Amino acid sequence: MHYGYFNGTIAPTDQLAVGITDLGLLRGYGLFDYFLTYNGKPFQWDWYWERFQNSAMRMHLPLPVTKNETFGIITDLIERSVDAGTSADMAFRFVMTGGYSADSISIEQPNLLILTESIHPVPAIQYEQGIKVILDEYVREMAEVKSTDYKRVILMAEAIRAARASDLLYQKGGEISELSRSNFFIVKGNQIITPDRHILHGITRRTVMQLAQTDFEVIERSVLLSELYDADEAFTTSSTKKVLPIVQIGDLTIADGHVGPTSKFLLQQFDELTRNW
Amino acid sequence: MHYGYFNGTIAPTDQLAVGITDLGLLRGYGLFDYFLTYNGKPFQWDWYWERFQNSAMRMHLPLPVTKNETFGIITDLIERSVDAGTSADMAFRFVMTGGYSADSISIEQPNLLILTESIHPVPAIQYEQGIKVILDEYVREMAEVKSTDYKRVILMAEAIRAARASDLLYQKGGEISELSRSNFFIVKGNQIITPDRHILHGITRRTVMQLAQTDFEVIERSVLLSELYDADEAFTTSSTKKVLPIVQIGDLTIADGHVGPTSKFLLQQFDELTRNW
Repeated sequence: MHYGYFNGTIAPTDQLAVGITDLGLLRGYGLFDYFLTYNGKPFQWDWYWERFQNSAMRMHLPLPVTKNETFGIITDLIERSVDAGTSADMAFRFVMTGGYSADSISIEQPNLLILTESIHPVPAIQYEQGIKVILDEYVREMAEVKSTDYKRVILMAEAIRAARASDLLYQKGGEISELSRSNFFIVKGNQIITPDRHILHGITRRTVMQLAQTDFEVIERSVLLSELYDADEAFTTSSTKKVLPIVQIGDLTIADGHVGPTSKFLLQQFDELTRNW
Repeated sequence: MHYGYFNGTIAPTDQLAVGITDLGLLRGYGLFDYFLTYNGKPFQWDWYWERFQNSAMRMHLPLPVTKNETFGIITDLIERSVDAGTSADMAFRFVMTGGYSADSISIEQPNLLILTESIHPVPAIQYEQGIKVILDEYVREMAEVKSTDYKRVILMAEAIRAARASDLLYQKGGEISELSRSNFFIVKGNQIITPDRHILHGITRRTVMQLAQTDFEVIERSVLLSELYDADEAFTTSSTKKVLPIVQIGDLTIADGHVGPTSKFLLQQFDELTRNW
């Protein structure tokens, strides 16, 4: 059983519900964050908190809890979940909305949810064979804020399925930004290159960039579609996907279509970091 | 007391709540519609239903109820609200989301809310003096779909207040589309002109265009910012605002800054139509 926190109350998540005047529900005015625990400890907590705080500020929502209070809530939720027989490794989802609104448009006080969830790991075969993504001409509004606006990928679910692909790769005017819920990298020789704008600054992205610095030249810059033709490898990063190889982008096969050594190496490095977290 | 419908159940709206795995809440995947009743009868019901159905289709959400069933629910809700001592003239808000999702991204079955609300009429002084709006370089994503995505205007609330304005007027590259929750018109001599793209096709817009046809030339086409300089009048339309004059747009005063005769005339026509609905 999973537990969650809602505006000061802790309860099993299936008993939590939000009133119907919530601005997240009525107006899409909400932000979130999402991270995993390893060995029962929140992974990269400082970085996630910093990003959550930044998203809230960018959406003009005052945080109703401090960092320490929030860490206390997280600890409490982990303990309760473990006592209820759930694994100590779980996902946390923070959701903050504009709160209940009398006139359906004005913010009064935010609603804050802190939820524990099961982790949905990527099937092992996807790490062995790599995934296919399809291109989509799109840029998320306020991409650097982790708003709840994920309409696009849900709207495109049928197109993704029809192409036997796993996700979308967003590009605009030939410049690549990110996948629908994860960041994008290409490998060229000793260089690891990742887009620097119109993206959400992923914590796994940041972790992988840090891990890669010892062995590779890590570069943040614009990445063009045309660069995919001579890339050695491509991969995507997120808390759930970790370092997931991409072997096909639309009709284009990346290099020889097999998972490359750099993606494998970085995944190993990442797994080692989390194993010892 | 107001009543509402949620997935087959009718209850007082303050007792309705949505579970926390709802895709409207978690992912901004939702659409809505909003209309008023006059003399206890839904205004322009056929047109609103048609639009709601179209929004649902465009967002790939199957409607769980037919038009007739929905009209039955509306009638029931009006009767209960009237029995509970509420005015027969009220607002209806339909909200449909991607529903509860086990993995926080895949649609299983939509959630449908049909809510009754009090009407929040525009203060009389705004009809007498007209309103000020400020320009904002923005186009709503999928503007023609009444999605729940109203982040922009909530985000800009402080800027609107600071300018002592009432709303935003969206433009992109000098082309005007709409206000944040209502349509836009200008008057030039005998012509009534309204933008034809990047807009939500308002039912009040459609009603006013129909009413105006007898006395004016009604034109749907691109409207440029540069045309505001020699416009005789400007106004906005929505179910709540009806026909609301705009006398200032950013630093620009429209004509002599007073409410013009055409806006007044069209408001009278609209009021007459609703009085006899």
